[in-house]
Amino acid sequence: MKIVLAPDSFKGSLAADRVCAALEGGLRRALPNAEIVKRPMADGGEGTLDAVVTALAASGGARRKQALVKNAAGQSAEAAYALIKHGIYEAAVIEVAQVVGIEDAHNMAVPVGERSSYGVGELIRLLLAEGIRHFFVGLGGTCTNDGGAGLLAALGVKFTGTFRREIAPSPNGLAKLISVDVTGLDARLAECEITLLSDVNNPLVGECGATAIFGRQKGVAAHEISNVDAVIDAYADRLEAALQRHAKAKPGAGAAGGLGYALQLLGARFESGAHTVARLIGLADACNGADWLITGEGRSDAQTLLGKTPFAAAQIARENGNAWLKATLISGGVDAASLEALNPVFNGGCFSIVPGPMALDQAIIRAPELLSNAAEQLARLLVGNAPEPVTTNT
Amino acid sequence: MKIVLAPDSFKGSLAADRVCAALEGGLRRALPNAEIVKRPMADGGEGTLDAVVTALAASGGARRKQALVKNAAGQSAEAAYALIKHGIYEAAVIEVAQVVGIEDAHNMAVPVGERSSYGVGELIRLLLAEGIRHFFVGLGGTCTNDGGAGLLAALGVKFTGTFRREIAPSPNGLAKLISVDVTGLDARLAECEITLLSDVNNPLVGECGATAIFGRQKGVAAHEISNVDAVIDAYADRLEAALQRHAKAKPGAGAAGGLGYALQLLGARFESGAHTVARLIGLADACNGADWLITGEGRSDAQTLLGKTPFAAAQIARENGNAWLKATLISGGVDAASLEALNPVFNGGCFSIVPGPMALDQAIIRAPELLSNAAEQLARLLVGNAPEPVTTNT
Repeated sequence: MKIVLAPDSFKGSLAADRVCAALEGGLRRALPNAEIVKRPMADGGEGTLDAVVTALAASGGARRKQALVKNAAGQSAEAAYALIKHGIYEAAVIEVAQVVGIEDAHNMAVPVGERSSYGVGELIRLLLAEGIRHFFVGLGGTCTNDGGAGLLAALGVKFTGTFRREIAPSPNGLAKLISVDVTGLDARLAECEITLLSDVNNPLVGECGATAIFGRQKGVAAHEISNVDAVIDAYADRLEAALQRHAKAKPGAGAAGGLGYALQLLGARFESGAHTVARLIGLADACNGADWLITGEGRSDAQTLLGKTPFAAAQIARENGNAWLKATLISGGVDAASLEALNPVFNGGCFSIVPGPMALDQAIIRAPELLSNAAEQLARLLVGNAPEPVTTNT
Repeated sequence: MKIVLAPDSFKGSLAADRVCAALEGGLRRALPNAEIVKRPMADGGEGTLDAVVTALAASGGARRKQALVKNAAGQSAEAAYALIKHGIYEAAVIEVAQVVGIEDAHNMAVPVGERSSYGVGELIRLLLAEGIRHFFVGLGGTCTNDGGAGLLAALGVKFTGTFRREIAPSPNGLAKLISVDVTGLDARLAECEITLLSDVNNPLVGECGATAIFGRQKGVAAHEISNVDAVIDAYADRLEAALQRHAKAKPGAGAAGGLGYALQLLGARFESGAHTVARLIGLADACNGADWLITGEGRSDAQTLLGKTPFAAAQIARENGNAWLKATLISGGVDAASLEALNPVFNGGCFSIVPGPMALDQAIIRAPELLSNAAEQLARLLVGNAPEPVTTNT
């Protein structure tokens, strides 16, 4: 029996590789001789870099690297990325959250109005200098809301205000924007193939835009949402006029505080984060001859079917595994009302790790144990055991 | 595929027949053509009468009846019981909770000190008059704590105090007990075979006795426990001296406020409640050729293995079903620390109905829906589906 474990992380609880380890522990108790292949997954956001490095490191196909670039507050900091073999090329895997991550958005001394994605552009420039022309950029989990102006500034775009004074590529800086000069934009970008990984479809501005939808979680005050949105809108108009390209309304322009916008202006293409990660980590090959796929995430509902990691994993496993392969979802919680929608994809059932009435914080704390137990019990149901003696007790 | 559903009730939430209906609904969605046999179970307590009547009514093997007898407060009330075919005899199935049930113990105007099990004795006397000599008595869930004195009084035992005045067969009455006269005890009892159904092993008195362990839930005040226990102890001593029989220390003497004691004094034998109910409802036959047993209860832990309903159901199913039969437990909650103990019995796994972090009251309210969903998802994992097309969504 061959089992493939390809869960997403359980956000706020467990990284994907730890989910795999917990599942494996439970499965081993029930099926000591099964072949278990672990492919921790990600959707382009948090965990993407780890998933790629974990899957490819064993074969020497990935090198984890560090670069000294500016964080969102403008201080120099080490940011992780990876170089991978991608066909005949060397490609870089960047997770923007490693440079300008959101985890400390509310603790950060520098407010969101002053933060910038400059460091992401710096990192790309460093990689261009090393000859890299293929980029996989995981968007998501950033603390910036600068429309990607910081990234563009680092790559040569000049943003100026009154008296042609250079302004900061941040929301507060852009509020003073008068002119955009794109003549200095790094020419090597024209040679690049940049793939964006994200499951965010929002446009840059407006009611469904980056600021309106994600601004609050980054620290934009409710009463400033419309002001900031207008600043980003005006910035984008000037930029597009200068470049003679348009990306404001493109799906995903609102990802990562507008990095999705700036990178699409530079010619980047959006792909399903989960499907691209699956491709990078060789999930299809791993599923070859598989009998059972187990995937999962913190919480599953009908949104899961919108290209999220468990959906992608199930789809790939059923296309590449044995004909009778079961794709099972084991999540922290499964929305009961979404089961009908989930059923056709997860032909091996949708289950929660929770063994009874329990508060969320307990489920999070006990996640490794509960994951192990759930996997063990499901394995015992699925696989024929030799009958065990039952002793009488009356 | 043949599936047998033999759950206990989910106490405080759903009766066993409704648990069966919910499970069946979910299974039908996954396995429209499976043969599903429903055998709602019970352990001798609440639900025993319903389980027996439900299982045997279809074949004409059980008649549900009513008798007008005293309730615990001494008022006339209809009490349900059943007559069943039992080999060549007609037997009565009595659930003492139908006569002196606990559900209103705290609302009852008459305090526990005045309550009596007299009505249970009356019911037996009525049945003796009808020629019944075989009794199955489900103990449990009573609001009385009279050591079974009421039952014995109804069957001819005289309890007297000063001046040979007859006293009430209740804890308060027994406090004035001076003499016990057993000469009037119904002689027909000697012809009877009385089987007691219970999973309570407590003795009549002492630290593990009826009053100490179950008194509080019936309304005995904490500071009165030792007094009441002494009264019951003295009553039992006088009674045993008069009868020249002993049952105080027998396991189960403390069941149903001491009805387990009085009935054992009359020669009744204790049997595992769940196993006896299983025998009465023909669970072994129902499991013939079965591939999958689903059982369950409100909450499962290591106690489940002490002869409780799911344990008995799993044992019987594995002895009588197909060699590859899976016995699966689906409960409201499963104690994670007990899984290792539960695993050898439930070879088809132990699962909760809860689909994610959730409060107990929500799980109780939503039990039917959650049971259906859990059964459906497990069925989908267990049984090979024809592969369904997965549509791309990227």
